[in-house]
Amino acid sequence: MITIALPKGALLKDSISVFKRAGLDFSNALDVNNRSLTFESQCKRGKALLVRNGDVPVYVSYGQADLGIVGYDVLKESELEVAKLLDLGFGGCHMSLAVKNSSNYSKPTDLPANCKVASKFTKTARSYFDDLNIPVEIVHLTGSVELGPITGMAEAIVDLVATGKTLKENGLHKIDDLYYSTARLIANPLSMRLDNSSLRDTILSIESICDLY
Amino acid sequence: MITIALPKGALLKDSISVFKRAGLDFSNALDVNNRSLTFESQCKRGKALLVRNGDVPVYVSYGQADLGIVGYDVLKESELEVAKLLDLGFGGCHMSLAVKNSSNYSKPTDLPANCKVASKFTKTARSYFDDLNIPVEIVHLTGSVELGPITGMAEAIVDLVATGKTLKENGLHKIDDLYYSTARLIANPLSMRLDNSSLRDTILSIESICDLY
Repeated sequence: MITIALPKGALLKDSISVFKRAGLDFSNALDVNNRSLTFESQCKRGKALLVRNGDVPVYVSYGQADLGIVGYDVLKESELEVAKLLDLGFGGCHMSLAVKNSSNYSKPTDLPANCKVASKFTKTARSYFDDLNIPVEIVHLTGSVELGPITGMAEAIVDLVATGKTLKENGLHKIDDLYYSTARLIANPLSMRLDNSSLRDTILSIESICDLY
Repeated sequence: MITIALPKGALLKDSISVFKRAGLDFSNALDVNNRSLTFESQCKRGKALLVRNGDVPVYVSYGQADLGIVGYDVLKESELEVAKLLDLGFGGCHMSLAVKNSSNYSKPTDLPANCKVASKFTKTARSYFDDLNIPVEIVHLTGSVELGPITGMAEAIVDLVATGKTLKENGLHKIDDLYYSTARLIANPLSMRLDNSSLRDTILSIESICDLY
């Protein structure tokens, strides 16, 4: 049986659709009244673990799931050892650097030395500023990162931007994009090595679906 | 004007009630249709920042909020520098060590050496096992920690337990309590030093309310 870590939230619907087209139907995980965390596929060949986006790489790297779907943003931040198989194309959004509309900063190098930058993605933000050789203090927030500049705690934020609506509502705008994030199919490296072909068949099915996009 | 960091979620209603009785009414923050992150009190003497539980110590320690209400669990895990003023008594729950009902572990020292323990509170869990001199690997999960033992990834979890319903539903039970967590009033140390008495008056009002419990 193949075990798959599926991400709760924005990526769930498309993730379930991908596996359904590859022959594993976990549609019952979309039932909001179902509080279960594990689901068997209708064909009984697969089991899904419904976990937070950030926990998908954990279950896959520790081998409790053979496969997983997770945003590139989370994957990059987690730094765990997993096999990165496919770019699934959906769930697209930019990881961006944004500042207040009232500020004079139009590019990252305009930021004052040692200023504060708020982010949920502290490793990503740290590595971005290190590459640019700009010394900043990264402040870890777990949510509503846009409140950092609004309250004056931070000069800038590094955060995911999909439509830009949240930035606009909060008087912020982008001054740089770090990368474009999409949903990725990942696998446990050992599961891949020990596979008796059922895992490979599923991955090939998903690959052929992706090629249609 | 006093700025206060209020925690979204389970502690919000009681937190607003505490400040209301101390003369600062932020009841409009309870309106679910209001997407604002900042609220002025009806008397205009206070401003509230509505933030995630885990971010309250950040806003208070960086001085963007003079006061904040946060669970002891989050406060202990954050390790940020804030003045710890009052135990407000509400939001009580235990930080507990739990294992599967089917396991033979009845106390922490029964856990096998180098086993995995899943937790959202990794520093708390690490310090607990270090104090007991039990070598374990702490696995950081961001949610649904009970899935750790269910999937076989972890032998135990360290997590908040209020009623015990979630543990029961997932076939787990407690074998130890680390501490009892309640909501705490915290302050920025510099705000306290620079205070022209309005902060002290608010704190004294809250203290007198707490004495009534």
